[in-house]
Amino acid sequence: MAAVALVQGASRGLGIEFCRYLLLNKAPAAVIATCRNPDGAEHLAALAAQHPGRMTVLKLDVNREEDIKSVAESVKSDFGKVDLLMNCSAMLHPSGKGETSLRDVSAQGIISTLTTNTVGPLVMVKYFAPLLQMGTGAFGQQPQEKAKQHSGIIVNMTARVGSIGDNALGGWYSYRMSKAALNMATRNLSIELGRGRGKIVCVSLHPGTVDTDLSRPYHRNVPKDKLFSTENSVQYLMNVIESLNIGKTGKAYAWDGTEIPW
Amino acid sequence: MAAVALVQGASRGLGIEFCRYLLLNKAPAAVIATCRNPDGAEHLAALAAQHPGRMTVLKLDVNREEDIKSVAESVKSDFGKVDLLMNCSAMLHPSGKGETSLRDVSAQGIISTLTTNTVGPLVMVKYFAPLLQMGTGAFGQQPQEKAKQHSGIIVNMTARVGSIGDNALGGWYSYRMSKAALNMATRNLSIELGRGRGKIVCVSLHPGTVDTDLSRPYHRNVPKDKLFSTENSVQYLMNVIESLNIGKTGKAYAWDGTEIPW
Repeated sequence: MAAVALVQGASRGLGIEFCRYLLLNKAPAAVIATCRNPDGAEHLAALAAQHPGRMTVLKLDVNREEDIKSVAESVKSDFGKVDLLMNCSAMLHPSGKGETSLRDVSAQGIISTLTTNTVGPLVMVKYFAPLLQMGTGAFGQQPQEKAKQHSGIIVNMTARVGSIGDNALGGWYSYRMSKAALNMATRNLSIELGRGRGKIVCVSLHPGTVDTDLSRPYHRNVPKDKLFSTENSVQYLMNVIESLNIGKTGKAYAWDGTEIPW
Repeated sequence: MAAVALVQGASRGLGIEFCRYLLLNKAPAAVIATCRNPDGAEHLAALAAQHPGRMTVLKLDVNREEDIKSVAESVKSDFGKVDLLMNCSAMLHPSGKGETSLRDVSAQGIISTLTTNTVGPLVMVKYFAPLLQMGTGAFGQQPQEKAKQHSGIIVNMTARVGSIGDNALGGWYSYRMSKAALNMATRNLSIELGRGRGKIVCVSLHPGTVDTDLSRPYHRNVPKDKLFSTENSVQYLMNVIESLNIGKTGKAYAWDGTEIPW
């Protein structure tokens, strides 16, 4: 049975690049790409057209629990399982700029950011965990011992700035808080979903500093060799994903596989 | 000039106990107690009546940014400074029960919990930081060296279950995530408010397992000697607070002063 990967937040940035990578390098894997507005996602449509029969684009707003539920039902009836769930959608702040100081903090700005970056990915898992438990372990490393094999993998895209222990600069309140809370979700999920049959590996991954819409306003101070293209970042991250097993669950890793402190 | 302490979430539990402690042990400190519904807060009113001229009770819903702003303005004109801000209000979940598994997770439940437990305390600091910068350092330990003295202290009440690294049991998604995000806020605030004049010490504190409405449904499995009364817990926490200085800012501490991992 072919692998099934679902990329949530697939219209641009790392999301669409994960789709491209999976289509090119993981044939015959099926790729399910979700985004808020498929009609406006031309690049995604072009990619689907280049790989007929391989990619399904579905409308899903991560802020709408009913969207998530109905997409999970449709994936269940069409595919019957998911092997890899990538939670990619994220915002820095509704304004597009992270808060540089308390002056920029507003209740509404934090709540919006938390809703998209933290609540959305967790609610995704609520509805897709049963499908990941039906996964056939098509991604990651499977140990010989059957009791330690996993059925599925969940990746929550985090960021090094979401590490509390690593935080020496401050600022970006909403984004940092949303990723710290997401890391807690990763940890909780790894515990709940790591037991019994149909084990699911759950990790947070930091993609490095990548040239995407989210981070572009902040690239001025990034040395050229530290700024990844989405292609490079996804190649690195897929290497990390393909090295995962149940022993590595419940942690945050950077693009080079090193562990990030909470 | 007498010390000024503001206790947010003062109608019950640890909040009202902090007020009682400060009134009894820190005379002539002024205590500002805020809660959502002062008219229904009989115990708080009784306490105020026992200590005439010492305590001011103000209406403040931590979910309403306009409430916070207007209370900050009134405290500014009446007191001109704050030396200690205690963020005490918190909920386990709108249902009163922490999620035992993903099945219990809902977008609305997480958002409500994050709004009260995480967003509220940070927005409090946004409006009260200027008053804490005017503080006279009446709480904590002041080092000899003037450049290292602090003007105010912010305490965000957290909980050991908000530690990602310490999380071995899972469950309580909303509460754990809200406290992890609050710990990130503590860290960020310690950086932004720890520089320049009017330094503010900012910490997260874990009160132990305390006999309050929030945790009462879970006391069955707690050994008797591990279950604190609010009086005991507040006594311990005030000892920790009185030992704080700028060198200890930006961390999470338990009731016995030991550091809690992120």
